[in-house]
Amino acid sequence: MKKKITIRDLAREAGVSVTTVSQILNNKGDRFSAATQEKVLALRDKYKYVPDFNARNLILKSAKTIGVLVPNIANPFFGTFIEGVQSIAREAEFIPLVFSANRDPKLEKYYLSQMIERSISGLVIASATMTTETIKEVISFNDIPYILFDQNHTQEGDRVQTNDYLGGQIAARHLIELGHKHIAVLTSDNPTENLNHRMNGFKNVIDENRLTIDAHHDVIRAPLTKDGGYKAAKKVYETGASAVFAANDEMAIGLLRGLHELGVQVPDDISVIGYDNIYWDDYVSPRLTTVQQPIFDLGAGATKMLIEQIDHNSNGARVQNFPVKLIKRNSTSSYRQK
Amino acid sequence: MKKKITIRDLAREAGVSVTTVSQILNNKGDRFSAATQEKVLALRDKYKYVPDFNARNLILKSAKTIGVLVPNIANPFFGTFIEGVQSIAREAEFIPLVFSANRDPKLEKYYLSQMIERSISGLVIASATMTTETIKEVISFNDIPYILFDQNHTQEGDRVQTNDYLGGQIAARHLIELGHKHIAVLTSDNPTENLNHRMNGFKNVIDENRLTIDAHHDVIRAPLTKDGGYKAAKKVYETGASAVFAANDEMAIGLLRGLHELGVQVPDDISVIGYDNIYWDDYVSPRLTTVQQPIFDLGAGATKMLIEQIDHNSNGARVQNFPVKLIKRNSTSSYRQK
Repeated sequence: MKKKITIRDLAREAGVSVTTVSQILNNKGDRFSAATQEKVLALRDKYKYVPDFNARNLILKSAKTIGVLVPNIANPFFGTFIEGVQSIAREAEFIPLVFSANRDPKLEKYYLSQMIERSISGLVIASATMTTETIKEVISFNDIPYILFDQNHTQEGDRVQTNDYLGGQIAARHLIELGHKHIAVLTSDNPTENLNHRMNGFKNVIDENRLTIDAHHDVIRAPLTKDGGYKAAKKVYETGASAVFAANDEMAIGLLRGLHELGVQVPDDISVIGYDNIYWDDYVSPRLTTVQQPIFDLGAGATKMLIEQIDHNSNGARVQNFPVKLIKRNSTSSYRQK
Repeated sequence: MKKKITIRDLAREAGVSVTTVSQILNNKGDRFSAATQEKVLALRDKYKYVPDFNARNLILKSAKTIGVLVPNIANPFFGTFIEGVQSIAREAEFIPLVFSANRDPKLEKYYLSQMIERSISGLVIASATMTTETIKEVISFNDIPYILFDQNHTQEGDRVQTNDYLGGQIAARHLIELGHKHIAVLTSDNPTENLNHRMNGFKNVIDENRLTIDAHHDVIRAPLTKDGGYKAAKKVYETGASAVFAANDEMAIGLLRGLHELGVQVPDDISVIGYDNIYWDDYVSPRLTTVQQPIFDLGAGATKMLIEQIDHNSNGARVQNFPVKLIKRNSTSSYRQK
């Protein structure tokens, strides 16, 4: 049997790339010269080329790309979030492209414009620095479907979220049930709105229990990173508190290291509770008690919602809520008089 | 969906040609009157016009985008690698788009074709599953500049690399200098070629020192993950070895957790050395001794090389080597008779 002519043979004989041939044969060849287009079509006729179904399928599905904007790819929280996005995107045959502008709003806006130029099908925006202005000017204006997560200051558009206020309450209740009365807080020096909710929920339960957190002495502020928590350890210890709520797990894990180096025993000398339930919590010592956000599910849920939007061409202000809950491990224990 | 504003709409409303609009919007409009330039720019702002990719491609040759293919975004090794890529891409005004096909060669090939259709400027390929066939058929054939890292079976194309054989030797020398004689190895159940080099270097030094690693009893195989290391802890302990070399840090960190739960003291009962120097090594207990790969620099170096390739249109088989070195922390100590 004669060997079947492939798209590769055509490309070779025409002296162009496979992509060029495929685009011309699929009537998407406008950007190539008339001479190139004619050469390719003539070769198709000469060899009576019939596109291979699979090869063709590869090309016709080409528009389906989801952009995923995160503040920091190296943060394990967003690593897990992206895995959730990928699981759904893959099923639905979308390609997820991840980009990160490290919380620089100008760069975010620029990258977004570039994504839109490349005919992205939709966007999952998990960056708290994205401004309402950018969403309106760049995204909505171009009718790009999008889903928001961890947004600061806008109430527009479909979104996935967790209840940060409740999460803060859960953390406070846990420490109070363990008998702690002098409690410190380690939080961001530049808090986003969801962090404020988290801290307000925490303080609400403290107040209800007629305890106080002295804003000057018991609230320590630092960057929301492992290093931030690590360097704040001495200040946290000097509050004299028997328990501390760290605003996220990265910070809490840094704090554990700092306290260890100071010779402070966790949880015997001080209980530590974090927030997020990143997958590293099981690998530090002691294993970290925390409030779980269902990170993978948030990424998957956002992507499901986005694909519905793309398929049905609808965007309202739908909100999907995901639950938070206490994960008790070894970094918290009952209050003991020293 | 609302109709997207096109360059043609702008031209019509401004009463000028499409070419005039495109040249003005691309800062090549010097030859037109100030009034014309202002009119076009005002219309762009009024309609928040984002140039369409294909239209723009006709005029501007390059849309500057770098695709970064990694096996797993959630792995902190690749998180740091990507940060290195971003640092250089940002300086050179390229947009890095990260994609991950979780070590599925078919999916990798499909994603790559899609990137190429979207006129990506170049690729950093940090996936050991990428086949020579895919590189030839999809990437080289389309004349896409690319850089390889951690490649298995191809010797073609520019690449960045570290000396895995030397890294393995460094790990073995460290343990032997500490006086260990019975040494175990915890390695992958599905090793890539660079891992084999690493293990061969390790064994070379063991042999030189007239020690032996019993292939049946002292070599434990598990998935190359934290969970893999965690679940292998009992087997590692049962070798009776006084020291163990884990093939990467994720595995070593899982092993530390597993040994801790078994009541085995590290390094008093057994010394543990890892490989990579991921940023979590400082946050586990005890802090992990390891062989450092300069992960951020590898990402940055690959990207510098790629941008040179894009700018100068050259691809040979240039190889840039990056150093490895011992990072001594607290998980290894001198051999003590039990």
